[in-house]
Amino acid sequence: MKRCLLLILSAVLGVTVMVSKDRGSLYGQRASLFELLPVDSTDIVFLGNSITHYCEWHELLGMPNVKNRGISGDVVDGFFERLDPVVKGHPKKIFVMGGINDISHNLEADSVATLMASLLDHIIENSPTTEIYLQSALPINNDFNRYKNIIGKDDVVVAYNKLLEQLAAERGITFINLYPLFVNEEGKLDPLYTNDGLHLLGNAYIKWRDVILPYVNQ
Amino acid sequence: MKRCLLLILSAVLGVTVMVSKDRGSLYGQRASLFELLPVDSTDIVFLGNSITHYCEWHELLGMPNVKNRGISGDVVDGFFERLDPVVKGHPKKIFVMGGINDISHNLEADSVATLMASLLDHIIENSPTTEIYLQSALPINNDFNRYKNIIGKDDVVVAYNKLLEQLAAERGITFINLYPLFVNEEGKLDPLYTNDGLHLLGNAYIKWRDVILPYVNQ
Repeated sequence: MKRCLLLILSAVLGVTVMVSKDRGSLYGQRASLFELLPVDSTDIVFLGNSITHYCEWHELLGMPNVKNRGISGDVVDGFFERLDPVVKGHPKKIFVMGGINDISHNLEADSVATLMASLLDHIIENSPTTEIYLQSALPINNDFNRYKNIIGKDDVVVAYNKLLEQLAAERGITFINLYPLFVNEEGKLDPLYTNDGLHLLGNAYIKWRDVILPYVNQ
Repeated sequence: MKRCLLLILSAVLGVTVMVSKDRGSLYGQRASLFELLPVDSTDIVFLGNSITHYCEWHELLGMPNVKNRGISGDVVDGFFERLDPVVKGHPKKIFVMGGINDISHNLEADSVATLMASLLDHIIENSPTTEIYLQSALPINNDFNRYKNIIGKDDVVVAYNKLLEQLAAERGITFINLYPLFVNEEGKLDPLYTNDGLHLLGNAYIKWRDVILPYVNQ
Protein backbone atom coordinates (compact mmCIF):
# COMPACT_ATOMS: atom_id res chain seq x y z
CA MET A 1 0.00 0.00 0.00
CA LYS A 2 2.78 2.37 0.98
CA ARG A 3 4.46 1.44 -2.28
CA CYS A 4 1.29 2.13 -4.27
CA LEU A 5 1.08 5.58 -2.72
CA LEU A 6 4.70 6.19 -3.66
CA LEU A 7 4.05 5.27 -7.25
CA ILE A 8 0.97 7.49 -7.38
CA LEU A 9 2.99 10.30 -5.81
CA SER A 10 5.70 9.80 -8.41
CA ALA A 11 3.09 10.00 -11.17
CA VAL A 12 1.54 13.15 -9.69
CA LEU A 13 4.92 14.83 -9.37
CA GLY A 14 5.58 13.97 -12.98
CA VAL A 15 8.77 12.12 -12.23
CA THR A 16 9.50 8.61 -13.24
CA VAL A 17 11.12 5.93 -11.18
CA MET A 18 10.71 3.38 -13.95
CA VAL A 19 13.58 4.48 -16.17
CA SER A 20 15.94 1.56 -15.75
CA LYS A 21 13.37 -1.17 -15.30
CA ASP A 22 12.91 -1.82 -19.00
CA ARG A 23 12.85 -5.59 -19.31
CA GLY A 24 14.07 -5.13 -22.90
CA SER A 25 17.43 -3.83 -21.72
CA LEU A 26 20.32 -4.83 -19.45
CA TYR A 27 17.85 -4.76 -16.55
CA GLY A 28 15.87 -7.61 -18.12
CA GLN A 29 19.01 -9.57 -18.92
CA ARG A 30 20.40 -9.39 -15.40
CA ALA A 31 17.03 -9.75 -13.66
CA SER A 32 16.27 -12.91 -15.67
CA LEU A 33 19.67 -14.33 -14.70
CA PHE A 34 19.10 -13.51 -11.03
CA GLU A 35 15.77 -15.34 -11.18
CA LEU A 36 17.70 -18.50 -12.09
CA LEU A 37 20.65 -18.22 -9.70
CA PRO A 38 19.73 -19.47 -6.25
CA VAL A 39 20.32 -17.53 -3.03
CA ASP A 40 20.49 -19.36 0.29
CA SER A 41 20.79 -18.58 3.97
CA THR A 42 24.60 -18.61 3.95
CA ASP A 43 24.84 -16.00 1.20
CA ILE A 44 25.95 -12.38 1.35
CA VAL A 45 24.21 -10.33 -1.33
CA PHE A 46 25.40 -7.02 -2.76
CA LEU A 47 22.35 -5.22 -4.12
CA GLY A 48 22.78 -2.08 -6.16
CA ASN A 49 23.39 -0.21 -9.39
CA SER A 50 26.48 0.07 -11.63
CA ILE A 51 28.77 0.88 -8.71
CA THR A 52 27.92 -2.52 -7.23
CA HIS A 53 27.64 -4.25 -10.61
CA TYR A 54 31.12 -3.36 -11.83
CA CYS A 55 32.98 -4.97 -8.94
CA GLU A 56 33.86 -8.64 -8.47
CA TRP A 57 32.76 -8.88 -4.85
CA HIS A 58 33.42 -12.57 -4.22
CA GLU A 59 37.00 -12.07 -5.37
CA LEU A 60 37.49 -8.81 -3.54
CA LEU A 61 36.25 -10.37 -0.30
CA GLY A 62 37.69 -13.84 -0.96
CA MET A 63 34.34 -15.48 -0.21
CA PRO A 64 32.49 -17.83 -2.57
CA ASN A 65 29.12 -17.10 -0.95
CA VAL A 66 29.20 -13.43 -1.93
CA LYS A 67 26.73 -12.67 -4.73
CA ASN A 68 26.62 -9.61 -6.97
CA ARG A 69 23.10 -8.31 -7.54
CA GLY A 70 24.06 -5.04 -9.13
CA ILE A 71 22.59 -3.76 -12.38
CA SER A 72 24.09 -0.79 -14.14
CA GLY A 73 21.59 2.07 -14.33
CA ASP A 74 19.18 0.60 -11.82
CA VAL A 75 17.02 2.70 -9.50
CA VAL A 76 15.70 1.82 -6.03
CA ASP A 77 12.32 0.83 -7.39
CA GLY A 78 14.17 -1.46 -9.81
CA PHE A 79 15.83 -3.16 -6.83
CA PHE A 80 12.37 -3.63 -5.35
CA GLU A 81 11.01 -5.26 -8.48
CA ARG A 82 13.75 -7.89 -8.44
CA LEU A 83 13.88 -8.50 -4.71
CA ASP A 84 11.88 -11.72 -4.63
CA PRO A 85 14.62 -14.11 -5.80
CA VAL A 86 16.85 -12.59 -3.11
CA VAL A 87 14.54 -12.49 -0.10
CA LYS A 88 13.02 -15.91 -0.73
CA GLY A 89 16.50 -17.37 -0.12
CA HIS A 90 16.72 -15.58 3.24
CA PRO A 91 20.36 -14.59 2.75
CA LYS A 92 22.57 -14.08 5.77
CA LYS A 93 23.35 -10.48 4.87
CA ILE A 94 22.38 -7.90 2.28
CA PHE A 95 24.60 -4.89 1.56
CA VAL A 96 22.54 -2.26 -0.25
CA MET A 97 23.72 0.80 -2.12
CA GLY A 98 21.46 2.83 -4.34
CA GLY A 99 19.82 6.11 -5.09
CA ILE A 100 22.26 8.00 -7.29
CA ASN A 101 20.36 7.06 -10.47
CA ASP A 102 17.09 8.15 -8.88
CA ILE A 103 18.78 11.46 -8.04
CA SER A 104 20.00 11.73 -11.63
CA HIS A 105 16.35 11.34 -12.67
CA ASN A 106 15.57 14.48 -10.66
CA LEU A 107 14.03 12.87 -7.58
CA GLU A 108 14.57 14.83 -4.39
CA ALA A 109 16.46 13.34 -1.44
CA ASP A 110 13.31 12.62 0.57
CA SER A 111 11.60 10.87 -2.36
CA VAL A 112 14.56 8.55 -2.88
CA ALA A 113 14.86 7.92 0.86
CA THR A 114 11.17 7.02 0.97
CA LEU A 115 11.71 4.49 -1.81
CA MET A 116 14.68 3.10 0.08
CA ALA A 117 12.63 2.87 3.29
CA SER A 118 10.05 0.85 1.40
CA LEU A 119 12.77 -1.46 0.11
CA LEU A 120 14.26 -1.97 3.58
CA ASP A 121 10.83 -2.65 5.09
CA HIS A 122 10.10 -5.22 2.41
CA ILE A 123 13.34 -7.06 3.18
CA ILE A 124 12.72 -6.89 6.94
CA GLU A 125 9.19 -8.19 6.52
CA ASN A 126 9.99 -11.00 4.09
CA SER A 127 13.36 -12.09 5.41
CA PRO A 128 13.58 -11.13 9.09
CA THR A 129 16.70 -13.26 9.63
CA THR A 130 18.68 -11.25 7.08
CA GLU A 131 21.10 -8.64 8.44
CA ILE A 132 20.85 -5.49 6.35
CA TYR A 133 23.76 -3.11 5.86
CA LEU A 134 22.65 0.16 4.34
CA GLN A 135 25.51 1.85 2.55
CA SER A 136 25.55 5.57 1.83
CA ALA A 137 25.62 7.05 -1.63
CA LEU A 138 29.07 8.18 -2.75
CA PRO A 139 30.12 11.73 -3.55
CA ILE A 140 30.07 12.76 -7.22
CA ASN A 141 32.49 14.91 -9.18
CA ASN A 142 31.08 16.97 -11.99
CA ASP A 143 34.47 18.39 -12.96
CA PHE A 144 34.57 15.37 -15.27
CA ASN A 145 31.46 16.80 -16.97
CA ARG A 146 30.49 13.28 -18.00
CA TYR A 147 27.03 12.76 -16.54
CA LYS A 148 24.90 15.84 -17.18
CA ASN A 149 22.03 14.62 -15.00
CA ILE A 150 24.02 14.74 -11.78
CA ILE A 151 25.41 18.25 -12.28
CA GLY A 152 24.60 20.43 -9.27
CA LYS A 153 23.24 17.52 -7.23
CA ASP A 154 26.09 17.20 -4.75
CA ASP A 155 23.89 18.61 -1.97
CA VAL A 156 21.06 16.21 -2.79
CA VAL A 157 23.49 13.35 -2.20
CA VAL A 158 24.49 14.79 1.18
CA ALA A 159 20.85 15.31 2.21
CA TYR A 160 19.94 11.80 1.00
CA ASN A 161 22.72 10.23 3.06
CA LYS A 162 21.48 12.01 6.20
CA LEU A 163 18.04 10.55 5.59
CA LEU A 164 19.52 7.09 5.03
CA GLU A 165 21.30 7.30 8.37
CA GLN A 166 17.96 8.08 10.04
CA LEU A 167 16.20 5.24 8.21
CA ALA A 168 18.83 2.80 9.40
CA ALA A 169 18.67 4.05 12.99
CA GLU A 170 14.86 3.81 13.04
CA ARG A 171 15.05 0.19 11.91
CA GLY A 172 18.03 -0.84 14.03
CA ILE A 173 20.11 -1.74 11.00
CA THR A 174 23.71 -0.81 10.31
CA PHE A 175 24.45 2.31 8.28
CA ILE A 176 27.83 2.32 6.57
CA ASN A 177 28.88 5.81 5.62
CA LEU A 178 31.22 5.42 2.65
CA TYR A 179 30.91 9.07 1.63
CA PRO A 180 33.79 10.39 3.79
CA LEU A 181 36.14 7.75 2.39
CA PHE A 182 35.96 9.08 -1.12
CA VAL A 183 35.25 12.81 -0.79
CA ASN A 184 37.98 15.40 -1.26
CA GLU A 185 38.37 18.81 0.36
CA GLU A 186 36.12 20.37 -2.27
CA GLY A 187 33.26 18.02 -1.41
CA LYS A 188 33.70 16.03 -4.61
CA LEU A 189 34.45 12.41 -5.41
CA ASP A 190 38.24 12.42 -5.23
CA PRO A 191 39.77 12.04 -8.73
CA LEU A 192 42.14 9.50 -7.16
CA TYR A 193 39.22 7.07 -7.13
CA THR A 194 37.30 7.77 -10.32
CA ASN A 195 37.82 8.37 -14.02
CA ASP A 196 34.36 9.78 -14.75
CA GLY A 197 33.09 11.45 -11.59
CA LEU A 198 30.56 8.73 -10.78
CA HIS A 199 32.10 5.26 -11.06
CA LEU A 200 35.04 3.82 -9.17
CA LEU A 201 38.53 2.68 -10.02
CA GLY A 202 40.00 -0.50 -8.57
CA ASN A 203 41.76 1.28 -5.71
CA ALA A 204 38.40 2.59 -4.45
CA TYR A 205 36.98 -0.92 -4.23
CA ILE A 206 39.99 -1.98 -2.13
CA LYS A 207 39.30 0.94 0.25
CA TRP A 208 35.58 0.07 0.33
CA ARG A 209 36.39 -3.58 1.09
CA ASP A 210 38.62 -2.64 4.01
CA VAL A 211 35.72 -0.73 5.59
CA ILE A 212 33.05 -3.40 5.11
CA LEU A 213 35.16 -6.46 5.85
CA PRO A 214 34.39 -6.38 9.60
CA TYR A 215 30.66 -6.28 8.80
CA VAL A 216 31.00 -9.07 6.25
CA ASN A 217 32.80 -11.28 8.78
CA GLN A 218 30.63 -10.25 11.76
CA MET B 1 56.37 -7.70 -33.76
CA LYS B 2 53.34 -9.50 -35.22
CA ARG B 3 51.18 -7.22 -33.10
CA CYS B 4 52.96 -4.10 -34.35
CA LEU B 5 52.33 -5.18 -37.93
CA LEU B 6 48.67 -5.68 -37.07
CA LEU B 7 48.40 -2.19 -35.65
CA ILE B 8 50.14 -0.70 -38.70
CA LEU B 9 47.81 -2.71 -40.96
CA SER B 10 44.83 -1.41 -39.01
CA ALA B 11 46.08 2.14 -39.44
CA VAL B 12 46.66 1.66 -43.20
CA LEU B 13 43.21 0.17 -43.66
CA GLY B 14 41.77 3.14 -41.82
CA VAL B 15 40.04 1.07 -39.18
CA THR B 16 40.47 1.48 -35.49
CA VAL B 17 40.76 -1.26 -32.93
CA MET B 18 41.11 1.20 -30.09
CA VAL B 19 37.46 2.11 -29.61
CA SER B 20 36.73 0.58 -26.23
CA LYS B 21 40.13 0.92 -24.65
CA ASP B 22 39.54 4.39 -23.28
CA ARG B 23 41.01 4.35 -19.78
CA GLY B 24 38.59 7.17 -18.91
CA SER B 25 35.59 4.86 -19.25
CA LEU B 26 34.29 1.54 -17.93
CA TYR B 27 37.33 -0.09 -19.53
CA GLY B 28 39.65 1.86 -17.21
CA GLN B 29 37.49 1.13 -14.17
CA ARG B 30 37.41 -2.62 -14.73
CA ALA B 31 41.00 -2.88 -15.98
CA SER B 32 42.25 -1.05 -12.85
CA LEU B 33 40.25 -3.43 -10.67
CA PHE B 34 41.62 -6.47 -12.50
CA GLU B 35 45.16 -5.19 -11.91
CA LEU B 36 44.48 -5.43 -8.16
CA LEU B 37 42.64 -8.77 -8.02
CA PRO B 38 45.09 -11.66 -8.05
CA VAL B 39 44.87 -14.64 -10.40
CA ASP B 40 46.59 -17.91 -9.50
CA SER B 41 47.24 -21.30 -11.02
CA THR B 42 44.00 -22.82 -9.72
CA ASP B 43 41.81 -20.15 -11.33
CA ILE B 44 39.48 -20.39 -14.29
CA VAL B 45 39.23 -17.05 -16.07
CA PHE B 46 36.40 -15.90 -18.33
CA LEU B 47 37.83 -13.26 -20.66
CA GLY B 48 35.52 -11.26 -22.89
CA ASN B 49 33.17 -8.38 -23.58
CA SER B 50 29.68 -7.56 -22.26
CA ILE B 51 28.37 -11.06 -22.94
CA THR B 52 30.96 -12.40 -20.49
CA HIS B 53 30.77 -9.38 -18.17
CA TYR B 54 27.02 -9.58 -17.54
CA CYS B 55 27.05 -13.13 -16.14
CA GLU B 56 27.93 -14.25 -12.63
CA TRP B 57 30.18 -17.15 -13.68
CA HIS B 58 31.32 -18.34 -10.25
CA GLU B 59 27.67 -18.67 -9.23
CA LEU B 60 26.55 -20.23 -12.49
CA LEU B 61 29.32 -22.83 -12.29
CA GLY B 62 29.27 -23.16 -8.50
CA MET B 63 33.03 -22.66 -8.29
CA PRO B 64 34.78 -19.98 -6.20
CA ASN B 65 37.90 -20.03 -8.36
CA VAL B 66 36.03 -18.81 -11.44
CA LYS B 67 36.88 -15.19 -12.26
CA ASN B 68 35.01 -12.81 -14.53
CA ARG B 69 37.29 -10.74 -16.74
CA GLY B 70 34.61 -9.36 -19.02
CA ILE B 71 34.28 -5.67 -19.88
CA SER B 72 31.23 -4.41 -21.65
CA GLY B 73 32.13 -2.94 -25.04
CA ASP B 74 35.61 -4.41 -25.12
CA VAL B 75 37.39 -5.45 -28.32
CA VAL B 76 40.02 -8.16 -28.82
CA ASP B 77 42.86 -5.66 -28.71
CA GLY B 78 41.39 -4.42 -25.42
CA PHE B 79 41.65 -7.98 -24.05
CA PHE B 80 45.28 -7.99 -25.13
CA GLU B 81 46.07 -4.74 -23.33
CA ARG B 82 44.80 -6.13 -20.03
CA LEU B 83 46.17 -9.64 -20.36
CA ASP B 84 49.23 -9.24 -18.12
CA PRO B 85 47.44 -9.49 -14.73
CA VAL B 86 45.82 -12.69 -16.03
CA VAL B 87 48.77 -14.49 -17.62
CA LYS B 88 51.22 -13.63 -14.87
CA GLY B 89 49.04 -15.74 -12.54
CA HIS B 90 49.26 -18.71 -14.92
CA PRO B 91 45.58 -19.63 -14.48
CA LYS B 92 44.51 -23.22 -14.94
CA LYS B 93 42.09 -22.35 -17.73
CA ILE B 94 41.01 -19.35 -19.78
CA PHE B 95 37.68 -19.30 -21.59
CA VAL B 96 37.77 -16.57 -24.24
CA MET B 97 34.90 -15.03 -26.16
CA GLY B 98 35.28 -11.90 -28.22
CA GLY B 99 35.11 -10.26 -31.59
CA ILE B 100 31.53 -9.05 -31.94
CA ASN B 101 32.46 -5.49 -30.94
CA ASP B 102 35.35 -5.52 -33.42
CA ILE B 103 32.86 -6.64 -36.08
CA SER B 104 30.51 -3.84 -35.03
CA HIS B 105 33.42 -1.45 -35.65
CA ASN B 106 33.51 -2.67 -39.26
CA LEU B 107 36.48 -5.00 -39.04
CA GLU B 108 36.30 -7.93 -41.43
CA ALA B 109 36.28 -11.52 -40.17
CA ASP B 110 39.92 -12.16 -41.07
CA SER B 111 41.11 -8.98 -39.33
CA VAL B 112 39.35 -9.92 -36.10
CA ALA B 113 40.58 -13.51 -36.33
CA THR B 114 44.14 -12.22 -36.79
CA LEU B 115 43.78 -10.14 -33.62
CA MET B 116 42.42 -13.19 -31.80
CA ALA B 117 45.33 -15.31 -33.09
CA SER B 118 47.73 -12.76 -31.65
CA LEU B 119 45.90 -12.90 -28.30
CA LEU B 120 45.99 -16.70 -28.19
CA ASP B 121 49.69 -16.77 -29.09
CA HIS B 122 50.45 -14.28 -26.35
CA ILE B 123 48.69 -16.48 -23.79
CA ILE B 124 50.40 -19.63 -25.07
CA GLU B 125 53.81 -17.95 -24.97
CA ASN B 126 53.42 -16.34 -21.54
CA SER B 127 51.43 -18.99 -19.74
CA PRO B 128 52.08 -22.32 -21.45
CA THR B 129 50.46 -24.30 -18.61
CA THR B 130 47.10 -22.55 -19.14
CA GLU B 131 44.47 -24.52 -21.04
CA ILE B 132 42.71 -22.20 -23.48
CA TYR B 133 39.11 -22.69 -24.55
CA LEU B 134 38.23 -20.56 -27.53
CA GLN B 135 34.51 -19.90 -27.67
CA SER B 136 32.74 -18.91 -30.87
CA ALA B 137 30.93 -15.63 -31.34
CA LEU B 138 27.16 -15.89 -30.95
CA PRO B 139 24.56 -15.25 -33.63
CA ILE B 140 22.99 -11.79 -33.69
CA ASN B 141 19.40 -10.76 -34.35
CA ASN B 142 18.82 -7.42 -36.01
CA ASP B 143 15.04 -7.78 -35.92
CA PHE B 144 15.41 -6.00 -32.58
CA ASN B 145 16.92 -3.06 -34.51
CA ARG B 146 18.81 -2.09 -31.38
CA TYR B 147 22.46 -2.09 -32.43
CA LYS B 148 22.81 -0.34 -35.79
CA ASN B 149 26.47 -1.28 -36.19
CA ILE B 150 25.81 -5.00 -36.42
CA ILE B 151 23.04 -4.78 -39.01
CA GLY B 152 23.87 -6.98 -42.00
CA LYS B 153 26.88 -8.55 -40.31
CA ASP B 154 25.41 -12.01 -39.66
CA ASP B 155 27.65 -13.52 -42.38
CA VAL B 156 30.75 -11.86 -40.93
CA VAL B 157 30.03 -13.66 -37.64
CA VAL B 158 29.72 -17.00 -39.46
CA ALA B 159 32.97 -16.42 -41.39
CA TYR B 160 34.74 -15.29 -38.20
CA ASN B 161 33.69 -18.44 -36.36
CA LYS B 162 35.09 -20.64 -39.15
CA LEU B 163 38.41 -18.84 -38.82
CA LEU B 164 38.35 -19.26 -35.04
CA GLU B 165 37.85 -22.99 -35.46
CA GLN B 166 40.94 -23.09 -37.69
CA LEU B 167 42.98 -21.00 -35.25
CA ALA B 168 42.11 -23.37 -32.43
CA ALA B 169 42.94 -26.47 -34.51
CA GLU B 170 46.30 -25.01 -35.58
CA ARG B 171 47.22 -24.40 -31.95
CA GLY B 172 45.81 -27.63 -30.54
CA ILE B 173 43.38 -25.79 -28.28
CA THR B 174 39.70 -26.51 -27.75
CA PHE B 175 37.14 -24.65 -29.86
CA ILE B 176 33.68 -24.46 -28.30
CA ASN B 177 31.06 -23.67 -30.90
CA LEU B 178 28.24 -21.94 -29.03
CA TYR B 179 26.70 -20.53 -32.22
CA PRO B 180 24.43 -23.53 -32.98
CA LEU B 181 23.02 -23.48 -29.45
CA PHE B 182 21.47 -20.06 -29.87
CA VAL B 183 20.70 -19.73 -33.58
CA ASN B 184 17.16 -20.13 -34.90
CA GLU B 185 16.01 -21.45 -38.29
CA GLU B 186 16.40 -17.99 -39.81
CA GLY B 187 20.07 -17.86 -38.85
CA LYS B 188 19.41 -15.31 -36.11
CA LEU B 189 19.97 -15.23 -32.35
CA ASP B 190 16.80 -16.92 -31.13
CA PRO B 191 14.49 -14.38 -29.41
CA LEU B 192 14.01 -17.02 -26.71
CA TYR B 193 17.49 -16.12 -25.48
CA THR B 194 17.78 -12.36 -25.98
CA ASN B 195 15.88 -9.13 -25.45
CA ASP B 196 18.00 -6.93 -27.71
CA GLY B 197 19.48 -9.16 -30.41
CA LEU B 198 22.99 -9.14 -28.98
CA HIS B 199 22.98 -9.83 -25.25
CA LEU B 200 21.69 -12.88 -23.41
CA LEU B 201 18.88 -13.62 -21.01
CA GLY B 202 19.40 -15.85 -17.97
CA ASN B 203 18.13 -18.99 -19.72
CA ALA B 204 20.90 -18.64 -22.34
CA TYR B 205 23.58 -18.61 -19.67
CA ILE B 206 22.16 -21.84 -18.22
CA LYS B 207 22.37 -23.44 -21.68
CA TRP B 208 25.90 -22.10 -22.16
CA ARG B 209 26.93 -23.49 -18.76
CA ASP B 210 25.63 -26.95 -19.59
CA VAL B 211 27.88 -27.02 -22.68
CA ILE B 212 31.06 -25.78 -21.01
CA LEU B 213 30.73 -27.60 -17.70
CA PRO B 214 32.61 -30.71 -18.94
CA TYR B 215 35.48 -28.46 -20.09
CA VAL B 216 35.47 -26.55 -16.81
CA ASN B 217 35.66 -29.80 -14.84
CA GLN B 218 38.09 -31.53 -17.21
